[in-house]
Amino acid sequence: MNMMALESGDDIVLIDSGILFPSDEHYGINAIVPDLTYLLSKKDRVRGLVLTHAHLDHIGGVPFLLEQLDVPVYGTAFTLGMVRKQASEFTLLKPPNLVTIKPGDEISLGCFTVEGIHVTHSTVQCLALAISTPLGYLLHTGDFKIDQSPVDGRVFDFESFAEFGRRGVLMLLSDSTNADVPGYSASEQTVGSALDHIFSQAEKALFFTCFSSAIHRVQQIVDRAVQHRRKVALVGRSLATTCEIASNLRLLKIPAGTVVQPTDLESYPSHDRVTIIAGSQGEPRSSLTRAAQGQHNTAKVEEGDIVAFSAKMIPGNERSIYRVIDNLYRSGAEVLYGDTCPGLHASGHPCREELKLILNLVRPRYFVPIHGDYRLLSQHKALATKVRGSDLQEAFVIENGCVLQIDEFGARVLPDKVPVGRRLIDTGTRSQIDRDGAMRDRRSMSEFGVLVPVVTIDERKGKAVEIEILDRGFDVSASSRAMLSGAEAVIQDSVRLSTKAERRDPALMEKKIQNDFRRYLSRKSSRQTRPLIVPVLLEA
Amino acid sequence: MNMMALESGDDIVLIDSGILFPSDEHYGINAIVPDLTYLLSKKDRVRGLVLTHAHLDHIGGVPFLLEQLDVPVYGTAFTLGMVRKQASEFTLLKPPNLVTIKPGDEISLGCFTVEGIHVTHSTVQCLALAISTPLGYLLHTGDFKIDQSPVDGRVFDFESFAEFGRRGVLMLLSDSTNADVPGYSASEQTVGSALDHIFSQAEKALFFTCFSSAIHRVQQIVDRAVQHRRKVALVGRSLATTCEIASNLRLLKIPAGTVVQPTDLESYPSHDRVTIIAGSQGEPRSSLTRAAQGQHNTAKVEEGDIVAFSAKMIPGNERSIYRVIDNLYRSGAEVLYGDTCPGLHASGHPCREELKLILNLVRPRYFVPIHGDYRLLSQHKALATKVRGSDLQEAFVIENGCVLQIDEFGARVLPDKVPVGRRLIDTGTRSQIDRDGAMRDRRSMSEFGVLVPVVTIDERKGKAVEIEILDRGFDVSASSRAMLSGAEAVIQDSVRLSTKAERRDPALMEKKIQNDFRRYLSRKSSRQTRPLIVPVLLEA
Repeated sequence: MNMMALESGDDIVLIDSGILFPSDEHYGINAIVPDLTYLLSKKDRVRGLVLTHAHLDHIGGVPFLLEQLDVPVYGTAFTLGMVRKQASEFTLLKPPNLVTIKPGDEISLGCFTVEGIHVTHSTVQCLALAISTPLGYLLHTGDFKIDQSPVDGRVFDFESFAEFGRRGVLMLLSDSTNADVPGYSASEQTVGSALDHIFSQAEKALFFTCFSSAIHRVQQIVDRAVQHRRKVALVGRSLATTCEIASNLRLLKIPAGTVVQPTDLESYPSHDRVTIIAGSQGEPRSSLTRAAQGQHNTAKVEEGDIVAFSAKMIPGNERSIYRVIDNLYRSGAEVLYGDTCPGLHASGHPCREELKLILNLVRPRYFVPIHGDYRLLSQHKALATKVRGSDLQEAFVIENGCVLQIDEFGARVLPDKVPVGRRLIDTGTRSQIDRDGAMRDRRSMSEFGVLVPVVTIDERKGKAVEIEILDRGFDVSASSRAMLSGAEAVIQDSVRLSTKAERRDPALMEKKIQNDFRRYLSRKSSRQTRPLIVPVLLEA
Repeated sequence: MNMMALESGDDIVLIDSGILFPSDEHYGINAIVPDLTYLLSKKDRVRGLVLTHAHLDHIGGVPFLLEQLDVPVYGTAFTLGMVRKQASEFTLLKPPNLVTIKPGDEISLGCFTVEGIHVTHSTVQCLALAISTPLGYLLHTGDFKIDQSPVDGRVFDFESFAEFGRRGVLMLLSDSTNADVPGYSASEQTVGSALDHIFSQAEKALFFTCFSSAIHRVQQIVDRAVQHRRKVALVGRSLATTCEIASNLRLLKIPAGTVVQPTDLESYPSHDRVTIIAGSQGEPRSSLTRAAQGQHNTAKVEEGDIVAFSAKMIPGNERSIYRVIDNLYRSGAEVLYGDTCPGLHASGHPCREELKLILNLVRPRYFVPIHGDYRLLSQHKALATKVRGSDLQEAFVIENGCVLQIDEFGARVLPDKVPVGRRLIDTGTRSQIDRDGAMRDRRSMSEFGVLVPVVTIDERKGKAVEIEILDRGFDVSASSRAMLSGAEAVIQDSVRLSTKAERRDPALMEKKIQNDFRRYLSRKSSRQTRPLIVPVLLEA
């Protein structure tokens, strides 16, 4: 959900606005995007949103942001192509104002001037940002790795980093994703060698799964398919669109006749087929998950085929991924994954030696590790402090909502946070869901079910003349049944022991019945069953 | 949930009966144990349950089994100590019949004779089983690794494996957990070197987290604490009990005065403290998780302390574990985990070279890979086929419920499975929960919430005179509200368009209203909101 705001005087510039996908579809949330409350109170000052690169954790929040904030969006052609694709699924009030930039372009946004610097990463057209502010330069690396032999030949722009270092950089903000990994990241080209090996051994159909934005990866697979005279099908809607966007920009080069429609692939013999298929994270509805279950229309995995996972297992997704791998084994395929085939993926993020290199090249006065969990920010800060010694004035680990204030007297984290947070987007209705209420209820229903006591109260008699308790998702063992029967007496007591005035107040009576019922259940059940209780009160 | 049954004539012998813990407490299930339906139909033939070792995935189902089946349970003293601990939380009809065995003992169970063989693993007193049957020997490895320098000096019993190999083994069943890991597993003693390094560097308090059954690991930590004159506290109920069981059996040797009560530890200076604390998997209620949040009574993590994770991250637990690590960093501790400190854990399972060794030593006629996901069973089978060539008559990958039949004509998997499955144990009530009904309802409520249409029907007028829709956990955006209001007309139609006879059948009317309501919602919501619908029907 990467997003930050730079503020100086009356000007605010935003960098990135990502989305977070919950690993499972728990509690009906399928997306989480940044809460913009702070910015909405300063709407008129927001000069623009600058995007570093096309990954969803950096751009996926853009359409949600544009629903609330009318600002120009700056990014490279590929990044904006991906934003346009995302936004097309939304009904925005007006078409987004997307401004294409190239490395070296300078954008003036109020008192800020932003210049993009080309960096290498696991997708194409990625930028670091050099931001000139009234107090000096900020250098924001975006996501990067230092690839000395990138697939497209466009190496990391050391020169610009060195040039800004020479001019003097007030603050460096640098990618911490791999701050706990020693050494250097492997070049994307090393994956090519693993692919060569696979293509030269394979006797039947080949399947590769990778992130849809991994254009260099797709390029390397396509290149080998051409060389081995295999046809390629791109399976998965997002993969196909992303490749189309990249092809149109000549960032992905596919010789005519190489890629065929998924439906046409089966007309070729199995040893002439390559399928690049979405679903490297075992996502439940992805093409690969369905293919592994034998439930995909066009992608059929058969005995002797090879399925290669060419992507990192994102922590938290291992179980889903292994479930897919197990199913692929059941269909008789050979599966290349994780440690069993280590060359099949190269990280897109810098390891510790690369981080040191950037620190020594840029020589910032202040340092802020970005992009990574607390432990990684913390390790990156320690690394910076060690590498730069007393040349580094201070390093800050900043958490969501923290304000780092810089002025002529120095830099400091302010004691108060600004309101930030998560907007939970509902799977069912696709609108923002109230976090405390609905989420809490969903949670208790998911664990314990729901009880609906339907209570008919006779006002004159001062008691309930009928009590029926409906239950759903509740444990139905004999002991639970007995517990529910016993609850009728408890509800009767709640009614009878109330005053006349109380009984005339339905909202109050609902609360009372709920509380008494809840207390009864926790007294009766040894291990605290806490179903949601929804009383329905009726007058006799 | 490891469990298997051997059946010959009128005799059934069971091996292990494990428990499975869902990673999160989703849908209110906190334990999954084997469904015994098949065995219950043959109750009188079950001669006994033999346990290979004390891990919960092999013994955690025992108390649940004893609730349903009255059989003697055989295992080593430590294994049975752990079973006794588990069973003490249950109210069994009669005390379990636990029979202690040692390696070399022969137990006669109907036509089977079972002999335990000492193997090394990540807990103590583990057995492989040599089972003499009317057709020949079965050799079941249990969980093992081949540790040439175990901490307690009791090496893997190669001799017995070789001896059975010499006599001729009909079928080998062997641990597949690491069947995709090349090479040999590291000796448990290698962890000692990592511990030496940590102890010699540490200037403040030390925390170690490991599995509570990892007695060798605890021993190694305690040994170093003694050497460095630190006091040790054992934090976590299960850890403390397990260590007590092991100490009483002299399997864990702690010099007097070394271990102190957790409450007493803080009277020692921080550089004299070691805490061994439960929670290596980031379990939400574990001691370590609470300590990391600063919410543990006795375990306080402070600036400069070292917290070392001395356990594997079990796939699926990474997110929870990283959350704990981040919190530990927030308290200023240095955390040693995973790849950042590779020597801190040694797997308890055999890698591929060890698997080959066992195959070559035992030289079985048939081979069945056990313990591991399908991909691992599949790779282990391929390995066995390659290593043993034509000397191996056949290898079988068997899934839950499959029957492998062996007779004088050979071995084969029968076409029909026997009824097996999972008993889901409810968190709230601790009894078995109905899988299809309650679970499905919990699932839809967890994602979409619940709607309770309260419909008062006037029989004479043939229509609903009042419709109120209660909702919980439902998205509360304006558009959802509008959708709900619109539903009232739909419900009115369901009532009005029904015949008089239908209206007199409440069960039928409930179904109708439910169906119409559901259809309306899926028509109205673009992305399929499917809340649970619980109609309450009343007569006016």
